[in-house]
Amino acid sequence: MGLHLKLFVLACTSLLSFSTILAQQSLDRITVKGNSFVNQKGDTIVFRGMSSSDPDKLKNDGLWTKQYFEEIKDWGANLVRFPVHPKRVRDRGLQEYLKLLDDGIKWAGELGIYVVIDWHSIGNLYTGIYLLDIYDTTQKETFNFWRTIAQRYGKNTTVAFYEIFNEPTTDQNRFGALDWDSWKAFNKQAITIIRANGGEGIPLVAGFNWAYDLTPLKFSPLDIEGIGYVSHPYPQKRAKPWEEKWTRDWGFAKNNYPIILTEMGFCGPEDPGAHVPVISDESYGTAITQYCDQRQISYVVWVFDMDWAPNMYTDKKFTPSRQGKFFKQKFNSYQ
Amino acid sequence: MGLHLKLFVLACTSLLSFSTILAQQSLDRITVKGNSFVNQKGDTIVFRGMSSSDPDKLKNDGLWTKQYFEEIKDWGANLVRFPVHPKRVRDRGLQEYLKLLDDGIKWAGELGIYVVIDWHSIGNLYTGIYLLDIYDTTQKETFNFWRTIAQRYGKNTTVAFYEIFNEPTTDQNRFGALDWDSWKAFNKQAITIIRANGGEGIPLVAGFNWAYDLTPLKFSPLDIEGIGYVSHPYPQKRAKPWEEKWTRDWGFAKNNYPIILTEMGFCGPEDPGAHVPVISDESYGTAITQYCDQRQISYVVWVFDMDWAPNMYTDKKFTPSRQGKFFKQKFNSYQ
Amino acid sequence: MGLHLKLFVLACTSLLSFSTILAQQSLDRITVKGNSFVNQKGDTIVFRGMSSSDPDKLKNDGLWTKQYFEEIKDWGANLVRFPVHPKRVRDRGLQEYLKLLDDGIKWAGELGIYVVIDWHSIGNLYTGIYLLDIYDTTQKETFNFWRTIAQRYGKNTTVAFYEIFNEPTTDQNRFGALDWDSWKAFNKQAITIIRANGGEGIPLVAGFNWAYDLTPLKFSPLDIEGIGYVSHPYPQKRAKPWEEKWTRDWGFAKNNYPIILTEMGFCGPEDPGAHVPVISDESYGTAITQYCDQRQISYVVWVFDMDWAPNMYTDKKFTPSRQGKFFKQKFNSYQ
Ligand SMILES: [Mg+2]
Ligand SMILES: [Mg+2]
Ligand SMILES: [Mg+2]
Ligand SMILES: [Mg+2]
Ligand SMILES: [Mg+2]
Repeated sequence: MGLHLKLFVLACTSLLSFSTILAQQSLDRITVKGNSFVNQKGDTIVFRGMSSSDPDKLKNDGLWTKQYFEEIKDWGANLVRFPVHPKRVRDRGLQEYLKLLDDGIKWAGELGIYVVIDWHSIGNLYTGIYLLDIYDTTQKETFNFWRTIAQRYGKNTTVAFYEIFNEPTTDQNRFGALDWDSWKAFNKQAITIIRANGGEGIPLVAGFNWAYDLTPLKFSPLDIEGIGYVSHPYPQKRAKPWEEKWTRDWGFAKNNYPIILTEMGFCGPEDPGAHVPVISDESYGTAITQYCDQRQISYVVWVFDMDWAPNMYTDKKFTPSRQGKFFKQKFNSYQ
Repeated sequence: MGLHLKLFVLACTSLLSFSTILAQQSLDRITVKGNSFVNQKGDTIVFRGMSSSDPDKLKNDGLWTKQYFEEIKDWGANLVRFPVHPKRVRDRGLQEYLKLLDDGIKWAGELGIYVVIDWHSIGNLYTGIYLLDIYDTTQKETFNFWRTIAQRYGKNTTVAFYEIFNEPTTDQNRFGALDWDSWKAFNKQAITIIRANGGEGIPLVAGFNWAYDLTPLKFSPLDIEGIGYVSHPYPQKRAKPWEEKWTRDWGFAKNNYPIILTEMGFCGPEDPGAHVPVISDESYGTAITQYCDQRQISYVVWVFDMDWAPNMYTDKKFTPSRQGKFFKQKFNSYQ
Repeated sequence: MGLHLKLFVLACTSLLSFSTILAQQSLDRITVKGNSFVNQKGDTIVFRGMSSSDPDKLKNDGLWTKQYFEEIKDWGANLVRFPVHPKRVRDRGLQEYLKLLDDGIKWAGELGIYVVIDWHSIGNLYTGIYLLDIYDTTQKETFNFWRTIAQRYGKNTTVAFYEIFNEPTTDQNRFGALDWDSWKAFNKQAITIIRANGGEGIPLVAGFNWAYDLTPLKFSPLDIEGIGYVSHPYPQKRAKPWEEKWTRDWGFAKNNYPIILTEMGFCGPEDPGAHVPVISDESYGTAITQYCDQRQISYVVWVFDMDWAPNMYTDKKFTPSRQGKFFKQKFNSYQ
């Protein structure tokens, strides 16, 4: 003890200033009630929105502006997801990166749009093998990230969701084996850290197979209340007809838990960046949105960017892409 | 094999030179006998001393000199603790840092003062969340540190104690959960490494809750002989009257094991750096020293520095602070 | 998804180019059949060869040339082992280091010599204590290394063996304790990664005690088919007479599994770099090669270098050293 006291007091002062700023937010705190997300009155809220690209990327593009969020609002979304790539945080520096999040959360909140903060790694946290360097992280870095997020935004009602780890995958064991008990233990530790540091939002736990498969919930859910589960049911994860397979693989879980598809979307085979598993057509858009609407499952379209695929717009005027047209119309139909 | 042989022989030669130097030390080897620390004749030795600030900090202040240790001697201490902050070691470089320890151990030994080497981290070694960057480390770094210390000072009788990890804490789960079995496994591994590398001093194992709580010893002590246990019973850890709570929380353990309070101390609310849990008055000094004296519990006051809090002196002339006056008198009363 | 697609396609293209190049190789794929290594016809192949020094070291010496491999061929070897030191990979950079392996594998393959890629660490992967900095690594780095090797050379039949970790040792607990179940779990994960990434060569698992002791196989072999086990029975690991001890410690395992001594060798006490456990004379050479020949155990002599010890040649003309003379004659006697 001793040395650190002055620093500690400084840190607390900083937290207080944030709290003051954040207290200006006026969105309802979203919580879990049964198998639903609800507002403070207890009304079920179904979220439909889109994932931004990495805020660091949008900042570099000159698009990390309030106008970007006004466009999201105009498209009819009530949720935006920020995919925070571990390497982008390291490269920009945590403190600088947090300023981007501060801005995005403020702009979203002012427009009545909720936010998912998503730790956007892909791979196996136990072997330390990731799809690409941009996804490289460690359990230690991940736990410290969530501590920081919970301290900084834990009371901010705009930040409705904490998506603990984007896509756990062994890539058919190419990233090494991973068992469900280990995955649960990691998520439980992350949720413990989030909550102990004041994070009042809803932790989201991803399924296996690149966040597709929630079947282990049939026998081994987390023993934690107040969380949601995630699937990313891109069109080529299963062959048509989809509905029965979706129900078997992840849709069944909506009987007991709130479910949110934090990624989904499609593009045609000729579209830029088209790749497995996202190639399809509007029949996918129709099927997945009907499936979700019938069951009050929330969903988030990947990705509100012009370069990353499948994109939702094609130029800096936000001209909708093929899936952009579909989802812009769909989002607006809810209003 | 092959490549490394020459290096290995070099390393052994270096060790021999150290042994030669260190053989000039003449303090008794301290060991554990029953629930006590004893000298070579088997007499119980109760330690009363103080923690220095980080040797790196004192070096930068121009105070890492034999005069500093003469002052400690003059105050009546028979033990000094060196809190080695992981980041200070990395920043100065291990080899340069070890030279500081070499000097401090030599000066202490020449004055008949024993030394505790303390790996001064605060946090959760399993999640990798620490109170501040200066405490950041890993299990790997910690194990390698103790290997180095045991190789370099293992036969040096001045270095009586190895305090494996200063303050394990989950900070009420803010640093993530940690169970006693994991904490035991970590300490057992560190002790295995220390002893296999020739460390003949006494390993010290800290309790939970910032090294306060030793209650798990009631059902699950380490299955290792010859070690001591640590509590840091700062005044505000419990409300007055303290004695019954101290007995329940850590004092009971003295029935079976040697106990050393490697940190304790107080300052008034108006003193520089005053903070929870150290704010109190002389009634704390009286209570804790009586408690220890009646039970032959060793203790170490935090901190023999003018800047860190609660300080023991207030200027480079070593003018005693409020707690400095109390403990200087107390130390001298034992002689 | 999204961002990484272009990179992913690029990576796949690179892999295809490698496959094309490597398809020119014409050596048989070596596999495990019962307790033997066999070629595609099912004939038992016993390997006798030598370990190079680190390719990075030979490159710096100007010896990483086809001539080096022609010399190996001339000495009568059918196998060469590349000891890849983790620090050498980091210092040169992985991509540059792989170019060295590309060259060595090509030259070996053109001459009909098989290759062992050996991750040349010495120490305890669980505590993170290693003999020297050059051996320092992590489980994460090790897993990622094998992923890379399997992707790049998995279909290349010249690369017959993947030696997962050179010498696990606790150095009598100086590197911390390590239990066989943990060692098995680590190797199983590495083998899972190698095979899932297309590695069709044979994984080799080392015994404890610096890759000497295979006695745990008596009660707890890995539950994986198609692997080999490794011992490094240097002369001073046991006192003469050796044979009974070798059978008890590792030779017994040949009843059930293919065994390869990926390191062995000797030098006289007066030879450069002589050190425990390699000091002996030709009686060791005779004993170990007879022992192996009688049981069809493969072996690899350490080390085909002029500087590292025990060396096999003494100058850039490849003049045989004392053990060099012995093994050059022995290798040629098989032909
Ligand atoms: Mg998976
Ligand atoms: Mg070796
Ligand atoms: Mg604690
Ligand atoms: Mg994705
Ligand atoms: Mg061993």
